[in-house]
Amino acid sequence: MVVLSDIDNIIINSIKEDMPSGDITTDNIIDENAKSEARLIAKNSGVIAGLDIAKRVFELLDQNVKFDKHISEGQWVNVGDVIATINGNTRALLKGERTALNILQRLSGIASQTREYADKIKHLKAKVVDTRKTTPGIRVLEKYAVRVGGGTNHRFCLSDGVLIKDNHIKAAGGIKKAIDLVRNKIPHTIKIEVETETIDQVLEAIDGKADIIMLDNMGLDIMKEAVKIINGKAIVEASGNVNLNSVVDIAETGVDIISVGSLTHSVTAFDISMKIS
Amino acid sequence: MVVLSDIDNIIINSIKEDMPSGDITTDNIIDENAKSEARLIAKNSGVIAGLDIAKRVFELLDQNVKFDKHISEGQWVNVGDVIATINGNTRALLKGERTALNILQRLSGIASQTREYADKIKHLKAKVVDTRKTTPGIRVLEKYAVRVGGGTNHRFCLSDGVLIKDNHIKAAGGIKKAIDLVRNKIPHTIKIEVETETIDQVLEAIDGKADIIMLDNMGLDIMKEAVKIINGKAIVEASGNVNLNSVVDIAETGVDIISVGSLTHSVTAFDISMKIS
Amino acid sequence: MVVLSDIDNIIINSIKEDMPSGDITTDNIIDENAKSEARLIAKNSGVIAGLDIAKRVFELLDQNVKFDKHISEGQWVNVGDVIATINGNTRALLKGERTALNILQRLSGIASQTREYADKIKHLKAKVVDTRKTTPGIRVLEKYAVRVGGGTNHRFCLSDGVLIKDNHIKAAGGIKKAIDLVRNKIPHTIKIEVETETIDQVLEAIDGKADIIMLDNMGLDIMKEAVKIINGKAIVEASGNVNLNSVVDIAETGVDIISVGSLTHSVTAFDISMKIS
Amino acid sequence: MVVLSDIDNIIINSIKEDMPSGDITTDNIIDENAKSEARLIAKNSGVIAGLDIAKRVFELLDQNVKFDKHISEGQWVNVGDVIATINGNTRALLKGERTALNILQRLSGIASQTREYADKIKHLKAKVVDTRKTTPGIRVLEKYAVRVGGGTNHRFCLSDGVLIKDNHIKAAGGIKKAIDLVRNKIPHTIKIEVETETIDQVLEAIDGKADIIMLDNMGLDIMKEAVKIINGKAIVEASGNVNLNSVVDIAETGVDIISVGSLTHSVTAFDISMKIS
Amino acid sequence: MVVLSDIDNIIINSIKEDMPSGDITTDNIIDENAKSEARLIAKNSGVIAGLDIAKRVFELLDQNVKFDKHISEGQWVNVGDVIATINGNTRALLKGERTALNILQRLSGIASQTREYADKIKHLKAKVVDTRKTTPGIRVLEKYAVRVGGGTNHRFCLSDGVLIKDNHIKAAGGIKKAIDLVRNKIPHTIKIEVETETIDQVLEAIDGKADIIMLDNMGLDIMKEAVKIINGKAIVEASGNVNLNSVVDIAETGVDIISVGSLTHSVTAFDISMKIS
Amino acid sequence: MVVLSDIDNIIINSIKEDMPSGDITTDNIIDENAKSEARLIAKNSGVIAGLDIAKRVFELLDQNVKFDKHISEGQWVNVGDVIATINGNTRALLKGERTALNILQRLSGIASQTREYADKIKHLKAKVVDTRKTTPGIRVLEKYAVRVGGGTNHRFCLSDGVLIKDNHIKAAGGIKKAIDLVRNKIPHTIKIEVETETIDQVLEAIDGKADIIMLDNMGLDIMKEAVKIINGKAIVEASGNVNLNSVVDIAETGVDIISVGSLTHSVTAFDISMKIS
Repeated sequence: MVVLSDIDNIIINSIKEDMPSGDITTDNIIDENAKSEARLIAKNSGVIAGLDIAKRVFELLDQNVKFDKHISEGQWVNVGDVIATINGNTRALLKGERTALNILQRLSGIASQTREYADKIKHLKAKVVDTRKTTPGIRVLEKYAVRVGGGTNHRFCLSDGVLIKDNHIKAAGGIKKAIDLVRNKIPHTIKIEVETETIDQVLEAIDGKADIIMLDNMGLDIMKEAVKIINGKAIVEASGNVNLNSVVDIAETGVDIISVGSLTHSVTAFDISMKIS
Repeated sequence: MVVLSDIDNIIINSIKEDMPSGDITTDNIIDENAKSEARLIAKNSGVIAGLDIAKRVFELLDQNVKFDKHISEGQWVNVGDVIATINGNTRALLKGERTALNILQRLSGIASQTREYADKIKHLKAKVVDTRKTTPGIRVLEKYAVRVGGGTNHRFCLSDGVLIKDNHIKAAGGIKKAIDLVRNKIPHTIKIEVETETIDQVLEAIDGKADIIMLDNMGLDIMKEAVKIINGKAIVEASGNVNLNSVVDIAETGVDIISVGSLTHSVTAFDISMKIS
Repeated sequence: MVVLSDIDNIIINSIKEDMPSGDITTDNIIDENAKSEARLIAKNSGVIAGLDIAKRVFELLDQNVKFDKHISEGQWVNVGDVIATINGNTRALLKGERTALNILQRLSGIASQTREYADKIKHLKAKVVDTRKTTPGIRVLEKYAVRVGGGTNHRFCLSDGVLIKDNHIKAAGGIKKAIDLVRNKIPHTIKIEVETETIDQVLEAIDGKADIIMLDNMGLDIMKEAVKIINGKAIVEASGNVNLNSVVDIAETGVDIISVGSLTHSVTAFDISMKIS
Repeated sequence: MVVLSDIDNIIINSIKEDMPSGDITTDNIIDENAKSEARLIAKNSGVIAGLDIAKRVFELLDQNVKFDKHISEGQWVNVGDVIATINGNTRALLKGERTALNILQRLSGIASQTREYADKIKHLKAKVVDTRKTTPGIRVLEKYAVRVGGGTNHRFCLSDGVLIKDNHIKAAGGIKKAIDLVRNKIPHTIKIEVETETIDQVLEAIDGKADIIMLDNMGLDIMKEAVKIINGKAIVEASGNVNLNSVVDIAETGVDIISVGSLTHSVTAFDISMKIS
Repeated sequence: MVVLSDIDNIIINSIKEDMPSGDITTDNIIDENAKSEARLIAKNSGVIAGLDIAKRVFELLDQNVKFDKHISEGQWVNVGDVIATINGNTRALLKGERTALNILQRLSGIASQTREYADKIKHLKAKVVDTRKTTPGIRVLEKYAVRVGGGTNHRFCLSDGVLIKDNHIKAAGGIKKAIDLVRNKIPHTIKIEVETETIDQVLEAIDGKADIIMLDNMGLDIMKEAVKIINGKAIVEASGNVNLNSVVDIAETGVDIISVGSLTHSVTAFDISMKIS
Repeated sequence: MVVLSDIDNIIINSIKEDMPSGDITTDNIIDENAKSEARLIAKNSGVIAGLDIAKRVFELLDQNVKFDKHISEGQWVNVGDVIATINGNTRALLKGERTALNILQRLSGIASQTREYADKIKHLKAKVVDTRKTTPGIRVLEKYAVRVGGGTNHRFCLSDGVLIKDNHIKAAGGIKKAIDLVRNKIPHTIKIEVETETIDQVLEAIDGKADIIMLDNMGLDIMKEAVKIINGKAIVEASGNVNLNSVVDIAETGVDIISVGSLTHSVTAFDISMKIS
């Protein structure tokens, strides 16, 4: 199989990182034709994300491996639930264990945390979105886990979305001027977002026909006022100091989007163990 | 500069991940010759790790950048402390900001958490070490941050260290047999570690002349007994269920090494902001 | 210098393609310390694009080369105009000549052709945009040349823009359903474009709140009607059978965007010669 | 499949260029198991080149795809001819469409143009050959298309052929000296070609035992004289200002080889559409 | 197949090195569907190493090739012995021949030479080990061949083993200080080796609790004395001026390990021919 | 510096192979700012090749290193001669030592052996050439060393030279037919070589207008006869069973070229030591 996707590249690099030249314990002890069955067992409750990636780790090490999912991607599991059963070459199971779990545990940790946020505001229209505060090299995986957990994604990177911030505004000499500078240079398929900190800036952004207006670190009352002023003329995104305590209040201001950095920058691994029988 | 190190590769990949084809906001608004000063400011207290990596991010984007550290690697900072001042091309500062912070915040998070563990047991001989439970692709950075925080490293990967576990022992037909299988195949420069769960296994490991004996998920009393039995004939490592509450009790059993997975798998990003003036 | 950009990668690969292991003519005849001056001379009239890329080719082969532009990027030149003077190592000049010219001639060819289209409709609001019909591997360069020539870019690729076509509509069971399927899955920063062939489809697209409506291969009258119906509720893009004869009529229908495949898929190299004195 | 050839690398890079992280339209609308049939239809008449490459694009996206060629490589097609039928996963067909067509259209454009040249002089001994004036990164494909169209190839690059030009001659102090400098350094398997502009230079090249003598931008009469003088002592190549009008006259001078830059540097894409039913 | 191992990378690079764009002789003469049988025949006597690598070369060129080993890895062969029979596509056989033989002949040369050393001292406890004096880029293969020949490996590289030499000792201010500097920084899984040239240094190394003591270029008598003094407190390695004449005397001093640079730096290719019938 | 050449790639890979993540001995003992002087000293007599490559190793590790050559490339040295003095960062010197020496010793070994062959026949017209029997991955370096030693190169690989062998002749149905099949497909810049084993085959090759005729494993008398028959109509290459004893006799037959596999496949490393003061 030729590697066409960034995700495959990440998986392959992870395997190589953990095993640049074999597993000197396993290769010297386990018979190369031995076969075993392994089970992935949840040691926590939460949302599972990354099952196909874990599967792919083992497939890359044993192309005849059988990876049976007992849980579907994005499903909730409880402590003790068997997530998947894996039958294959024993060496491959032992070699892939750590890499598969490292990915599965991180992605499930992200999905579980995202689900917590999403559940808190599911009665409101606001959506939880991620940020660019991701772990170097695995942004595509982490943003995927956010989607599995019920969030949606913000722009992927600096090249595919416009976010006009404080320094851009200063350099351009105003929000409207900044928007105009960008509008004629970028593909017509990309929206323009402006970061605002005051009602005055919100008004300027509306005037400049921003597609998305970010309310950055605003108090709840100002946020409410901003939403009212914008009144559908742009998508409204709340950002800054969002946590599980504050997210409902923020959503209740009427914003469309709430971006949460900790979805990806501060994650507790979801505990999963692999038992070989 | 030619890229010789894995760390440089990680940095470059991170920059490319965040900016595969330019920053369409900055490139269209900020003058290409504009210069600015930026400050990295701690918004938390803890141990800083990764300063040279953050510096390198900016150097790769502007080879004339001046990155002045006000804090040295591994130093403790408090909220509001200025960590570094950066003078350079404004576009480069804006483009490098997120990548530099993503790395710096994760590494400082790891170093800070490691320091907490290390401080708790600094009156005892045991050392805190990491595991292979790292984020895919950046193990070399995460293990570096553990060292900055006052921990030491376990084996880097499956290729450079021997750890004989349950399944290896079963396949070989006993601990001693497993050790013998490995000993004659590996370089004489590598030690052999065996995972044990009972005192009987500890005795077998001693008999097999294991260089390191891991006490896996043992109760404190059994651990103490194991340490006594081993009595310097091997390095003793405690593993499993280690947290900030349990680490002192475990260290007091007399083990040499305590390995802690959460040092790297469950990390809260250390909050740092970059202010451009 | 570390390679951070896709453009640098293209340049380096081009040099390697033309010289995987030296220039066996030049290396065996020309003294390694010889220096010369070369001039790039237009043998045609049109718009120059790619000067910095040509410069970079020579810099990669001789880091002390002096590349003086007499023409600025995007400027019109006439036959005989000296585009640039290059002073440097003779071997480097001879080795870089073909690679630099191959790129410069193709990009200038694209920019010149784009300028022709743009000039024809400069009195109208419509903008000329490119498509994904580019040469494999150098899309980023070709889209750059379109911008230099006065056009703007459509989406870069399948990953960063939504274009709902015939087959998507059929599979989803209607335009509105297709839009809804996409809207909740993609970042809120990306617009949704729908390809339509009839007025009925245009109405459906408006109903589905498409951000951009493509009028594909429509006659001029239907196009005019569509523009009237859409009436600012979406950006309007004309596509199909656009050439230098038809582009004005199309623009006069009132569309916002006219996409032209031949800008990049059928290009006459702009003739430039390099004279070494 | 492991990638062993440069052609495979080009195909893979093209797919990645057009789809670094999925097709956000198709992936969100088309069922992942849907299957369709697509037909590649000629919208022009000419010579088809690149069928196996188009096939490979789809195979890389769906390893079970069935790609039935109705036309063989190098065959002439007319408007409306079905070139191939493709049965496979609908997502794969939609994702591969543009990349496959971009390559197929360019290569068929090159082959068609080459055929025109070759046909014009097929009653004469001269052969049409390409040059190094190719598109950066895909020279191997473009030179292949020239062969499909009935031309042959000149040297691939600076490393595998010797062409002594004006500047080399000046630096060496004469044609014969230049030839001698090279002859003793290169493998005995490579021929030496010299570029000449006058009859005197032709005589010098014969004297130096050049294997190939290029007549660069000579008038027809001088060319004829040169051919007569050379009289089989070297291969004779005509170069410069070759187009469809001049090629017959040039061939009639008796030269062996006519090199044509526009075969690859100025190509009209051969129009092909893909219809999914 | 995705490339996960360094060995696969070496094989692929070797094939590409010998055939970057096809075999212009074979591709133009041999029918693409022709099939043949080839035999690998020993033209010398010695130990065969690298059979699976030779097999892989052919598999990469023809995935249906049948490679039947008549000899097992590490087995002794005599002149005329058929090592393997290969049935497959004729083009693939001709294209893979040189690459497969280049690897097989070098690895068998290394294994054969290692066997000679190992056989000489097989009645003694000392083991023959290799060094880092390997051919650039193929260390992993060469160290593998040493194991096949009956030797064992020293550290793979500077990153995975500690060897404190003269300059380190001087810089640290003594052997014990050097050991202490390293001990607290490296993983507890790695042993520390010290190079010594005198009995005094041996004593210092014992005092510093070195895990391995290298006796570098010592005379036999001093070596014997050193072994006696060390008396099991560390592994003893002899190094320097080891050849087939001296190796027995050195082994008889009682050292555990004898490292031999020429095992990999000065190798006579083991002659093997491939006959196609 | 961007890596443009295959040689640079080999150097970088060699450094990474020996030091994927630092030198754990040196990094923990030697001060990062320490500076030293090292001397490369010949411990043998012969021809030095690869000095610029050794220099580059150190430059890549310390861009301020000073590498002073006391010997020029290709010069003869005797035991004890100082080849070069290197001043730079101590860590860089220690880290680069093994990689630099591994390359320098192998290349000097090749050059020295080639010089022996070349010297033996310097009174005759025949030239010593290498073969494709090189070490995987470093063919470009080994062929370079052959040139330094006074030999010349045969074709680099299967893609850039034609050598029609036994199996090609059989498949084509005769030498002339094989030549014709190839002649019309390959660039006119490449010569055609045919392997012959009998006088009859030589005659056929002449008849087919082969550019080079290889006399493979022929007896001296037949060789002489073949040379006489060919009589300048083709370049004559002798091949097979060439060693230092037989090379003069072979050269005296009047052949133009003698190819010697052992120049690169069986090499004794030229012993060089690095002393740090």
